[in-house]
Amino acid sequence: MVNEQRLTRWLREVRAGRRTVAAVVRDLRHPPIDHLGFAQLDTHRRLRRGLPEAVLCEGKTSAQIVRLARRIIASGELLVLTRLDPATASVVQQALPAVRYDPMARLGYRLPAHRLTRRGLVVVVSAGTADLPVAEEAALTAELLGSRAARLYDVGVAGIHRVLNAFPLLQRARAVVVVAGMEGALASVVGGLVRCPVVAVPTSIGYGANFAGVGPLLTMLNSCVPGIGVVNIDNGFGAGYLAHLINHASNSR
Amino acid sequence: MVNEQRLTRWLREVRAGRRTVAAVVRDLRHPPIDHLGFAQLDTHRRLRRGLPEAVLCEGKTSAQIVRLARRIIASGELLVLTRLDPATASVVQQALPAVRYDPMARLGYRLPAHRLTRRGLVVVVSAGTADLPVAEEAALTAELLGSRAARLYDVGVAGIHRVLNAFPLLQRARAVVVVAGMEGALASVVGGLVRCPVVAVPTSIGYGANFAGVGPLLTMLNSCVPGIGVVNIDNGFGAGYLAHLINHASNSR
Amino acid sequence: MVNEQRLTRWLREVRAGRRTVAAVVRDLRHPPIDHLGFAQLDTHRRLRRGLPEAVLCEGKTSAQIVRLARRIIASGELLVLTRLDPATASVVQQALPAVRYDPMARLGYRLPAHRLTRRGLVVVVSAGTADLPVAEEAALTAELLGSRAARLYDVGVAGIHRVLNAFPLLQRARAVVVVAGMEGALASVVGGLVRCPVVAVPTSIGYGANFAGVGPLLTMLNSCVPGIGVVNIDNGFGAGYLAHLINHASNSR
Amino acid sequence: MVNEQRLTRWLREVRAGRRTVAAVVRDLRHPPIDHLGFAQLDTHRRLRRGLPEAVLCEGKTSAQIVRLARRIIASGELLVLTRLDPATASVVQQALPAVRYDPMARLGYRLPAHRLTRRGLVVVVSAGTADLPVAEEAALTAELLGSRAARLYDVGVAGIHRVLNAFPLLQRARAVVVVAGMEGALASVVGGLVRCPVVAVPTSIGYGANFAGVGPLLTMLNSCVPGIGVVNIDNGFGAGYLAHLINHASNSR
Amino acid sequence: MVNEQRLTRWLREVRAGRRTVAAVVRDLRHPPIDHLGFAQLDTHRRLRRGLPEAVLCEGKTSAQIVRLARRIIASGELLVLTRLDPATASVVQQALPAVRYDPMARLGYRLPAHRLTRRGLVVVVSAGTADLPVAEEAALTAELLGSRAARLYDVGVAGIHRVLNAFPLLQRARAVVVVAGMEGALASVVGGLVRCPVVAVPTSIGYGANFAGVGPLLTMLNSCVPGIGVVNIDNGFGAGYLAHLINHASNSR
Amino acid sequence: MVNEQRLTRWLREVRAGRRTVAAVVRDLRHPPIDHLGFAQLDTHRRLRRGLPEAVLCEGKTSAQIVRLARRIIASGELLVLTRLDPATASVVQQALPAVRYDPMARLGYRLPAHRLTRRGLVVVVSAGTADLPVAEEAALTAELLGSRAARLYDVGVAGIHRVLNAFPLLQRARAVVVVAGMEGALASVVGGLVRCPVVAVPTSIGYGANFAGVGPLLTMLNSCVPGIGVVNIDNGFGAGYLAHLINHASNSR
Amino acid sequence: MVNEQRLTRWLREVRAGRRTVAAVVRDLRHPPIDHLGFAQLDTHRRLRRGLPEAVLCEGKTSAQIVRLARRIIASGELLVLTRLDPATASVVQQALPAVRYDPMARLGYRLPAHRLTRRGLVVVVSAGTADLPVAEEAALTAELLGSRAARLYDVGVAGIHRVLNAFPLLQRARAVVVVAGMEGALASVVGGLVRCPVVAVPTSIGYGANFAGVGPLLTMLNSCVPGIGVVNIDNGFGAGYLAHLINHASNSR
Amino acid sequence: MVNEQRLTRWLREVRAGRRTVAAVVRDLRHPPIDHLGFAQLDTHRRLRRGLPEAVLCEGKTSAQIVRLARRIIASGELLVLTRLDPATASVVQQALPAVRYDPMARLGYRLPAHRLTRRGLVVVVSAGTADLPVAEEAALTAELLGSRAARLYDVGVAGIHRVLNAFPLLQRARAVVVVAGMEGALASVVGGLVRCPVVAVPTSIGYGANFAGVGPLLTMLNSCVPGIGVVNIDNGFGAGYLAHLINHASNSR
Repeated sequence: MVNEQRLTRWLREVRAGRRTVAAVVRDLRHPPIDHLGFAQLDTHRRLRRGLPEAVLCEGKTSAQIVRLARRIIASGELLVLTRLDPATASVVQQALPAVRYDPMARLGYRLPAHRLTRRGLVVVVSAGTADLPVAEEAALTAELLGSRAARLYDVGVAGIHRVLNAFPLLQRARAVVVVAGMEGALASVVGGLVRCPVVAVPTSIGYGANFAGVGPLLTMLNSCVPGIGVVNIDNGFGAGYLAHLINHASNSR
Repeated sequence: MVNEQRLTRWLREVRAGRRTVAAVVRDLRHPPIDHLGFAQLDTHRRLRRGLPEAVLCEGKTSAQIVRLARRIIASGELLVLTRLDPATASVVQQALPAVRYDPMARLGYRLPAHRLTRRGLVVVVSAGTADLPVAEEAALTAELLGSRAARLYDVGVAGIHRVLNAFPLLQRARAVVVVAGMEGALASVVGGLVRCPVVAVPTSIGYGANFAGVGPLLTMLNSCVPGIGVVNIDNGFGAGYLAHLINHASNSR
Repeated sequence: MVNEQRLTRWLREVRAGRRTVAAVVRDLRHPPIDHLGFAQLDTHRRLRRGLPEAVLCEGKTSAQIVRLARRIIASGELLVLTRLDPATASVVQQALPAVRYDPMARLGYRLPAHRLTRRGLVVVVSAGTADLPVAEEAALTAELLGSRAARLYDVGVAGIHRVLNAFPLLQRARAVVVVAGMEGALASVVGGLVRCPVVAVPTSIGYGANFAGVGPLLTMLNSCVPGIGVVNIDNGFGAGYLAHLINHASNSR
Repeated sequence: MVNEQRLTRWLREVRAGRRTVAAVVRDLRHPPIDHLGFAQLDTHRRLRRGLPEAVLCEGKTSAQIVRLARRIIASGELLVLTRLDPATASVVQQALPAVRYDPMARLGYRLPAHRLTRRGLVVVVSAGTADLPVAEEAALTAELLGSRAARLYDVGVAGIHRVLNAFPLLQRARAVVVVAGMEGALASVVGGLVRCPVVAVPTSIGYGANFAGVGPLLTMLNSCVPGIGVVNIDNGFGAGYLAHLINHASNSR
Repeated sequence: MVNEQRLTRWLREVRAGRRTVAAVVRDLRHPPIDHLGFAQLDTHRRLRRGLPEAVLCEGKTSAQIVRLARRIIASGELLVLTRLDPATASVVQQALPAVRYDPMARLGYRLPAHRLTRRGLVVVVSAGTADLPVAEEAALTAELLGSRAARLYDVGVAGIHRVLNAFPLLQRARAVVVVAGMEGALASVVGGLVRCPVVAVPTSIGYGANFAGVGPLLTMLNSCVPGIGVVNIDNGFGAGYLAHLINHASNSR
Repeated sequence: MVNEQRLTRWLREVRAGRRTVAAVVRDLRHPPIDHLGFAQLDTHRRLRRGLPEAVLCEGKTSAQIVRLARRIIASGELLVLTRLDPATASVVQQALPAVRYDPMARLGYRLPAHRLTRRGLVVVVSAGTADLPVAEEAALTAELLGSRAARLYDVGVAGIHRVLNAFPLLQRARAVVVVAGMEGALASVVGGLVRCPVVAVPTSIGYGANFAGVGPLLTMLNSCVPGIGVVNIDNGFGAGYLAHLINHASNSR
Repeated sequence: MVNEQRLTRWLREVRAGRRTVAAVVRDLRHPPIDHLGFAQLDTHRRLRRGLPEAVLCEGKTSAQIVRLARRIIASGELLVLTRLDPATASVVQQALPAVRYDPMARLGYRLPAHRLTRRGLVVVVSAGTADLPVAEEAALTAELLGSRAARLYDVGVAGIHRVLNAFPLLQRARAVVVVAGMEGALASVVGGLVRCPVVAVPTSIGYGANFAGVGPLLTMLNSCVPGIGVVNIDNGFGAGYLAHLINHASNSR
Repeated sequence: MVNEQRLTRWLREVRAGRRTVAAVVRDLRHPPIDHLGFAQLDTHRRLRRGLPEAVLCEGKTSAQIVRLARRIIASGELLVLTRLDPATASVVQQALPAVRYDPMARLGYRLPAHRLTRRGLVVVVSAGTADLPVAEEAALTAELLGSRAARLYDVGVAGIHRVLNAFPLLQRARAVVVVAGMEGALASVVGGLVRCPVVAVPTSIGYGANFAGVGPLLTMLNSCVPGIGVVNIDNGFGAGYLAHLINHASNSR
């Protein structure tokens, strides 16, 4: 692979007449990418996207997770392990005692070497008690990435006054995450009350015609309220990430 | 077929000894139904179900509709023609000038010979302007069957205050019909505000992930608010019928 | 939060000149809701909706359920715990011995302090033996809320005479709940025989093309018989609740 | 291709020593089929399956249909053209005046040269007026193939007595075809009343959650009544064919 | 309920003047059915349908199954317990040692008191080894009801010669059951080779886009070969029942 | 309705002793909302949400659209008419010549009285030429609301270098809208290249297994790249609105 | 953009000391792609993929198609216009008389300047007459790209001998395309008979449970025969392209 | 069955007058197939298809698998056991110690007696770590059948440079297998970079709207890149088989 150092050396050799022009052209030709060392997984994601990579643990072995986590910790970068079940978490923690684990959010993490100040407000709203794991995954993710997060839980539309009551808090948010299973109507109601973008997360909470989250997913996609972006069913991490990105934009400019 | 008159005559003949017991037993044996003239379509539906039969026009020829309508009018019973498109309606009206037609609700009808007093309040709530045809079908059906109907239209959840504003009216209803397309969240919000049963009608209004009404249908079935009964997509007639039935029960006892 | 007592006190202070008009306006301004203490979960649901709130146990921890149940019992209100599995039930009962548990219906409950007289008849009809848990959930729910409930079980359409036989009972009902899995045809057959509203509950009983209840759900939504309101698959609680609401309307006016 | 005449001739030549064994083996080797002239489309289907081939007109050009029809007529075999729309039918009839057309059933046909006696009773039951085209397609198909067909139309489950009334007729059938759209419950009800096999045809009649026939299709597949075989949505031809096959079996043995 | 005895007594009392005509009319009016004792579950199913009722064990408790089985055995009728898992089977057999159990077909059964002669040939064809349980359920069901059954297993279309090889056997059948998972193509291939009706059973064998049997279900419904009736996914019992019914018709006339 | 003026007057009357405390408590009790004049549709949406309301034209009559448009123009607010077909557009323009129409984006609009400066960059990326209408709807919406919009069209993943080529532009964006039909893979590829939030819009462009946009919708929801919010199929307006909201947040703080 | 000429010039300037090493490194840094002029749409697709790009006409305006076609013709490359309807085709041909049009295959095309010799055999097999357009699209595509194509049409599985008859032809193919609607079983049957890869194309031909091609799509994906690759419903072009690619590989090595 | 020996003997007997012509005609008539011994399962699959049969273990008992494996080993042919779980594998290995097992790929196998030289390059590309089992199944299958396989794992589109980096390797492949779950976008990206056919395998890796692999399945079917053939979800074996077939074609001609 051609990185910046190697390219510089080659050019110097061209200048010095120790390397032909044709040789350099040939070496640069084939890969239509990445001449400047763009590729190292865990050190460049932040450069390109502004945030480090997280590790989705579902479908990976404990050994694979530990190896990836060790490498990220070694780089001094923030470590986030998502969908980490308790059994695997304890294996990871035995190998890497620096890793902390939140069983409700199913997140393992280790803060980066450099401290970050949390700025801007993300409000995470959830409809029911059973939606808490996804809501906590969103809230904790936003916090780990550098946002402040307020939690507004159990405010389902069956008692609409509960969410209306939180109007002042909602108006202060720079991004709102709405987490709802069952029929998922909360996203539209909240969306109609706020000025900022809403990230809607359908959950698989419910039964029958909920179809493991399809019900609230369709509700959120069909919302008559503009300004709502939907993420995958139960994707609390993605919601927290997107909300932080929106909040972060407000901060950094 | 054995109707009440015939049965009475037979029994009198038995009493008079002009007919054997065995003959009557034999005549009553084979058909496990309908011994009392129960079968005449348009005169007995009201006896059994309390309401007359309506004619679903979709899939029927104009000639078939006219023939059925003429027979119902002749019986003095209420005539309701549902899903009657304007072109067919004008054919029907040429043949049967007594039939009235509401193009918005796509209903043809003729009031029964005996006047009825409308009693009890059914409130029909709709989310958007495009839901009006289904909402009108529900409201007019309830009125034709004998309920008073109040209309509360265009109160979608994007501006939640609009429906909250109607709280006093909603609290007075004996049955509420909620008509909503898009994400259909209105049913849950209204359901959380009323004391009476709610009949929810998903409509096929929307696009994309609405899937011709599947979106709001799932929303309504999954509602976290108990007390909601759902009817088929775009089934304004069924909703008005059910709401009247609920309202009527309150009146008649 | 502003409740009635507080508002009364404020107004008296205004009258007495001990509080300015501007201060009261300011305190009432921001939350567009709930000035009269409307928000306390378990004491005001009954005021607004006429019935208390039930607790859906699925997705909640035992600790959360116990805490909610204790609070509702303390308020003297009816406690209903739905979808309560036996293991959790015994944890709840250890903490709260006053709670009774019906394993068939999967309902935990405690009657309210004030005795209620059961009035009006809800008939719960079920197609097969395997539908019993959902049917019992509906019947017991209606009874707990204050309806009398008659059970008419195992009358599937394979032997149509079984349901026809119950015609007199069905005609006496103020609301009928039909619980059916497999193809769910029973709802239409019963709907064609009664004068009162029918609440149809599809169950997930069946296999193959039943698709965990989608088959009977579609059957019930597509019914050619008007007067049927459908609730979610396996939602016995919702069906009993809605049937009681309909029955109750008949009683209270 | 090797047909029976040719094979016989070859064998005689072998016997006469005018043809070598090796030559015959070679000629029979390559095609793993059809050595006896089995392949001629329209003359051998009847030999193998007992009934001739029908022509599905949907997706074929008028010219293709005329060419196929002419060939079948020339063979003296029964011609059946299914799903033939009126416009194409008139083109076909101009080219082949012997072809008759039933616009309700959308069937074009010409009886075979040899007269057939219709035997055995197929009863075709339909739920609603809008199901008539599919029901007629089934009934006429059964008749064309050689069954007697009785029609029992508009006996939907909303008035269950209508079908019960036909109990004696149903008990006489050797095969019953049930045609139903909407929720398709009629198949189960009829299935529970008869001794013979039932062929169930879901139709696309309905709207909303009918999903163009998926609703009644699932109903029929999930039927709690054994003895029902289901064919594709709107497949009146297939139903009439299968019913005739069942009826025919009864006759021929 | 009004049975023949009671009706006869009433009529005699009328004749004797001990009962008024009006009283009899009133007593006969309300139930639109069943005046002659048409109803007893387990003794009349055979009368009406020609075959006794089977017990679907899934979703029933062991106690319920034992009670039902005992009652059927006591009546001297054939007992068939479908979808009976091994654990429940051993409970049933401990209570009712006369019950036999076939673990492959998951059928429990006890032959009726009167011996029956098996007549007519049902051929059960299956595509793969994993389809055996459903195929055996079909074959054993047909045998228990009174058909002879031939088994032709593991003849999937990947090696088409295997099923072609069985052409003579297939041509002798009075009904063929085709059991296939994966893509379910076998039904069409077999359907094209036989003269008799084909009963097609999709199975849930497969993975991915098989969708638990939806793949072969659609294949069978869409078959370009007429003469195929489809039953529910994995419904071996229903297939055997229908095949026997078809075969039986051939025998009995 | 209770607004601030009325409340102030009441309180003054209380202070003056001309109004009882009980009367004020009663008047404030029933509606749990909206005491401060929160409700007027078109003048308060901007106050609450920061942006005015748009009019979805699909399902509305021309007369309804003209009436709504006239009222919004009269208020001096920005008018946006979405999904406006050309025929209706010309009717609207005849009535309201100030309305402009973009046939590609199917948007009618009239800029507000107060000029706005477009700030911040929204990049709209589309995969294929056929996606242009939705992409233009998004871009023009963002511009009308006050964002600058850059268009990057026809950069589908079949030639991945086309989108990689735009890396510098993408890195400058404050929000990116990705519009893609077919398989919708572009959203993930773009998402992996940018620092800002991505709004993904699946389109119904494609055929077969595209299922009118379901294919790309699932692709986008399942993206392995975090930071993507999905809107409804073909919802260019919603995407432009959300992208503007995100961009606007960056500007305003 | 950096192409080979420019890079060479830069390197020569570095060698000559007229350009600094740092300047070249900076110019090469930002775009992670395409330094060597890799990007020109229509001239490089063949270099990278071995075949030129085709134009999907659906969703494009006539003007857009003409512009793209003109540009491709000007480059001397093969022009293929897919899904071109007759009306648009005649517009294109008026503008570009060199374009030929096959209405059955809905393909517009112009052969490239350099003649190509067709090599290797692709056999296109179709089940029914109605599948011809898709089959022709596949066959003509393969021919245009440089394969010989044999057509084997109307060999559906209802008469299995028809396809078995073609065994010798099928064994000679280097790639086989199977085009089938209805139940799509032909793919498995053919797949079991050949040595070469099979490309399966489901078509939307059929009705009811065909679901516009979903039926045969699932059949083909679930095939028990390995060696089958499936393309999108009705995607004759993609099938011909893939079959040619497979055939071409055989030729070129 | 009639094989060549038997046919020759018959013909000789005809020639010798020891067998009548009629007898031979009769014996050849009924089976429309297979006169030349085309049939033996495990010895002829390779003859007809060029590759031996594999055993799908899912749904088979250990005993069935052992019996089939023993028979294949005895024939000297390659044994491949797919979807073999570890527990069953150890039972098989106890019975047949020659069988090797790869737990990652879930493949049991035994190389054939005759050694094969691996030729041609199949590249297996996978998106994520969790896709490894399916990718390994594909790679090992291709190797067992006789291809060389290169593995290129964990190159998901979130970091597009990772796959672009492998451009030279991809260009050398004769067939590429792309294995991807989540949104499955990798297939299109890789498809756009290679000259050879691509075999795409959707996996069930993911959650929510992934729907157990439906998401990536649709993505791959809808790909805007021609030259991609899709196999069933998680069907690594089928993908490896097809890729080998394509590669093998290149080699053998």
